[in-house]
Amino acid sequence: MTEISAAYDLKWFAARSYVAAQRHPHVASAVNPEIIQHYHAHVYYDPVSSRDRAARLRERVAAIFPDVTLGRWHDTPVGPHTQSMYQLAFPPPLLASFLPWLMLNRDGLSILLHPGTGDAYADHIDHAVWLGSVLPLRVDVLRKSRKTPSQS
Amino acid sequence: MTEISAAYDLKWFAARSYVAAQRHPHVASAVNPEIIQHYHAHVYYDPVSSRDRAARLRERVAAIFPDVTLGRWHDTPVGPHTQSMYQLAFPPPLLASFLPWLMLNRDGLSILLHPGTGDAYADHIDHAVWLGSVLPLRVDVLRKSRKTPSQS
Repeated sequence: MTEISAAYDLKWFAARSYVAAQRHPHVASAVNPEIIQHYHAHVYYDPVSSRDRAARLRERVAAIFPDVTLGRWHDTPVGPHTQSMYQLAFPPPLLASFLPWLMLNRDGLSILLHPGTGDAYADHIDHAVWLGSVLPLRVDVLRKSRKTPSQS
Repeated sequence: MTEISAAYDLKWFAARSYVAAQRHPHVASAVNPEIIQHYHAHVYYDPVSSRDRAARLRERVAAIFPDVTLGRWHDTPVGPHTQSMYQLAFPPPLLASFLPWLMLNRDGLSILLHPGTGDAYADHIDHAVWLGSVLPLRVDVLRKSRKTPSQS
């Protein structure tokens, strides 16, 4: 398994992309995932009805994934978020094990997972993936920060 | 980078989970991602307005990710899908490089990415992630196949 995982790392991807770009004109213009500096997973909850589930998820993440940085609880929505949430930040190599775990263990909670490429608007809207129900985002906040790295 | 990626493979995860479960009661009941046998990414398009973008994405995927199995074009919706789509099937180790690439290169298309655990309903609804706009699924079709591995 280790060998197979290593075969798909970014070095392999970069080499493969270079070869493919020589033969396929559309491939040359594809965006390279190496621009991703980190990921954020925003775990949403309702302070009354689902804070206990969010706490249990948080405890599990802390125990199993020590390299995930746990953000503060935000019972009051902050930044582009319109519901209570906390943030889980992690480095790109952790996606391979952490996202499959979240898929199977999110316990009905909505999660916005997005890469950090330096363009907060694109990262939250165009590049994002959602687990569970999609929630509205305050697009005006993201537009304001378009030229700066995401803190959200 | 190779060493870091290898540190997060499933063997590492299993060992880490075992240690964590000894100390944290909630961790023991978490679902282990080792039950994931494969992934499907369903790429949706409109036969009139976005088939060209879907074709370009397909060409790029074929060139860069030869281990992704390209499914047939379905201009007429099939199974639980309510819009035209084709399926991209891939083995679990490919998630680490393929999903980040899809995040950055889906070109405005909606994509449903789900694991295959043998429970088609849970895989398409509870375990799924969406890139782009979420589309309705025919839940009745998924319920019928609940006890059988997913073909969709």
